[in-house]
Amino acid sequence: MNDNLAPIPLQIGTGLPVAGVRLSTAAAAIRYAERDDICLVEVDDGASVAAVFTQNQFCAAPVVVAKEHLEKDPTRYLLINSGNANAGTGDEGLRAARETCRAVAAMAGCPMTYVLPFSTGVIGEDLPIAPFQNSMPKLLSSLTDDYWAEAAAAIMTTDTRPKLCSCEVLLSSGKVTVTGMSKGSGMIRPDMATMLAYVATDAQVNDALLQNYLAEAVAPSFNSITVDGDTSTNDACVLIASGASNIEVVAESSDADIFQAGLRAVFMHLAREIVRDGEGATKLVEVAVSGAVDEQDAKNVAYTIAHSPLVKTAWFASDPNWGRTLAAVGRAGVQNLDLSAVKILLDDVCIVSAGGRDTAYREEDGQRIMDQGEFSVRVELGMGDAQYTVLTCDLSYDYVKINAEYRS
Amino acid sequence: MNDNLAPIPLQIGTGLPVAGVRLSTAAAAIRYAERDDICLVEVDDGASVAAVFTQNQFCAAPVVVAKEHLEKDPTRYLLINSGNANAGTGDEGLRAARETCRAVAAMAGCPMTYVLPFSTGVIGEDLPIAPFQNSMPKLLSSLTDDYWAEAAAAIMTTDTRPKLCSCEVLLSSGKVTVTGMSKGSGMIRPDMATMLAYVATDAQVNDALLQNYLAEAVAPSFNSITVDGDTSTNDACVLIASGASNIEVVAESSDADIFQAGLRAVFMHLAREIVRDGEGATKLVEVAVSGAVDEQDAKNVAYTIAHSPLVKTAWFASDPNWGRTLAAVGRAGVQNLDLSAVKILLDDVCIVSAGGRDTAYREEDGQRIMDQGEFSVRVELGMGDAQYTVLTCDLSYDYVKINAEYRS
Repeated sequence: MNDNLAPIPLQIGTGLPVAGVRLSTAAAAIRYAERDDICLVEVDDGASVAAVFTQNQFCAAPVVVAKEHLEKDPTRYLLINSGNANAGTGDEGLRAARETCRAVAAMAGCPMTYVLPFSTGVIGEDLPIAPFQNSMPKLLSSLTDDYWAEAAAAIMTTDTRPKLCSCEVLLSSGKVTVTGMSKGSGMIRPDMATMLAYVATDAQVNDALLQNYLAEAVAPSFNSITVDGDTSTNDACVLIASGASNIEVVAESSDADIFQAGLRAVFMHLAREIVRDGEGATKLVEVAVSGAVDEQDAKNVAYTIAHSPLVKTAWFASDPNWGRTLAAVGRAGVQNLDLSAVKILLDDVCIVSAGGRDTAYREEDGQRIMDQGEFSVRVELGMGDAQYTVLTCDLSYDYVKINAEYRS
Repeated sequence: MNDNLAPIPLQIGTGLPVAGVRLSTAAAAIRYAERDDICLVEVDDGASVAAVFTQNQFCAAPVVVAKEHLEKDPTRYLLINSGNANAGTGDEGLRAARETCRAVAAMAGCPMTYVLPFSTGVIGEDLPIAPFQNSMPKLLSSLTDDYWAEAAAAIMTTDTRPKLCSCEVLLSSGKVTVTGMSKGSGMIRPDMATMLAYVATDAQVNDALLQNYLAEAVAPSFNSITVDGDTSTNDACVLIASGASNIEVVAESSDADIFQAGLRAVFMHLAREIVRDGEGATKLVEVAVSGAVDEQDAKNVAYTIAHSPLVKTAWFASDPNWGRTLAAVGRAGVQNLDLSAVKILLDDVCIVSAGGRDTAYREEDGQRIMDQGEFSVRVELGMGDAQYTVLTCDLSYDYVKINAEYRS
């Protein structure tokens, strides 16, 4: 894709309707009382649907079933519930996931393999099927295209706010819309930091191309964020192209570049919102590693910093503690690292050079950056041209509180 | 080594004198007022000294200098200070480390390369040399063999208590003593979780064999503990065999087995004490992974569990949260993992089998284990015969407090 395009303006917190995609929600009391906890998404016949799922080998029942269905048949419905992850539930969990698909299919008059199930919430508890069956008449009868905000709220667990944005992309033959929602990463009964995202467009994109676009959009967004390093059992990200605009995006065109820029803007925003709403997070930190021999080295350094409890607690304390960052660089497994070539900057303030504190560095300059709610930690390894950037957050008392207190 | 020997009784909190090894301490006010912060250890001419150091590529100046000296010449003195790690201090730090060795050598009348320097404490601040020079007359004139308890206290940073133990090992030609001390892993101004350990014996062991014994003793002890996964820049572990007993240990003998068992008991205790005194720790947890295809797989699973913030906060909450443990197993990178073969036990209570909650598991049984201050998490992968065990602790409010609050 072309990175030199003008940025696509995002409408943050807004879910512009996407022709060919309809949504509804229901309060089924799966866990939460008095709030919607099931969302149904219907896509037009002929839409392309691409998806990526958690790499955790211990993946939840709905992930197993969604992959099976996606491989076998076209997709017409996404069925998403919050409050119960249907993970660690063995064969019974698989049966329950299939039963919920059957509930949609029976009433919608389609094969059950046209339905993809998604769950998020507590792990290790059986998913009840009756709430789905009971909600189905309401869910199927109230589908409408202007319902993204309600859907984004229904898929929340301990998220403190819904995550939603849209953009309009002007292609050579007309305008297409991209709207997306995501959820993560806190839970009322926290058993797993679970992330789900759904993005839809009315552009027409063939299946293979859509899967490529999804992979490219996910890499720098959802696959480059971390709150606590704990990969969920239920992560899923779905990209829908309804084709309802009759505007087709074909590979290697200038339209494709613009369309991908729009997708990327939506994905980056939704990923960023997950980190900003991370459990106990008070700071949003971009860890940008450059000058590596290859991307894997840059990635190892970035994640070692982003997962270091000592670094994350220093961020929480607004402490420009470069020693902890340098120590994380030193243990990241980079071969032939020359510490005298390593530089570390906070935004544009150089704090480390030549293996120690930069001679021009003044503590008040570092402090000024750290007192912000968002900043970058930039590490220049001075070895090559590869780079990698991770978005993450600090480690606060509230992280411990949220994860220690809420389970009986 | 032979694992089937009777356990060697340990004298915990006791530092039996080791013939041929003398210690002294001084209050030099490097950082702390009104407490000893320098320790000098003198070993007999002809003693064997083995050492292992941090694998962090960003290693502190004293580590660089100690390695140089150890390679070049025999060792007569260990000079250890707390309060300043002399790390991230560039060329000036190397100069300071060498100057402190020179201060010992000048007064003791030996080459400076006979002195190994060690530092622990805050990172990124210049190490002052004058306190060492000023303390040297006292340090050299007060050396005595019955001073381990004072030495163990002098090397502490934010350790809440000294870590010290001894054992006597009966070999075929007489009795030898093994005494050791360690420090870690909290700091008054926490910049790095730093661990130091010194173990001495009056047995006679040649240099090469002693280095082997050290490597074997370190593997299951200091190299199998973790508090927060942050490898220090200053870690060092030294094993001294003074030979003053005139009792020689030779390789592949029954004496060697018994002697190694004694060493191992001392190392295991000192390592365990570091975890028990880990920053904010309220629980000591043994993570034992078995049934792996190879040791690396077992190690990856054990450390993934031991470093998971979600798992560690659940331990803090005394929450038998098997879903988080199973999810950590699932993301540990084990190829061809069959989740239906995985079992997880808390001590002797099976909580997970066949990919979900064990059918016989009752929450109160798990709760009973978790309410203890020490317990095991046992993971059986069901794939092979390899195993690995890590000792670790929970993640509490106090971990965040200690690491967020104490730096200006």
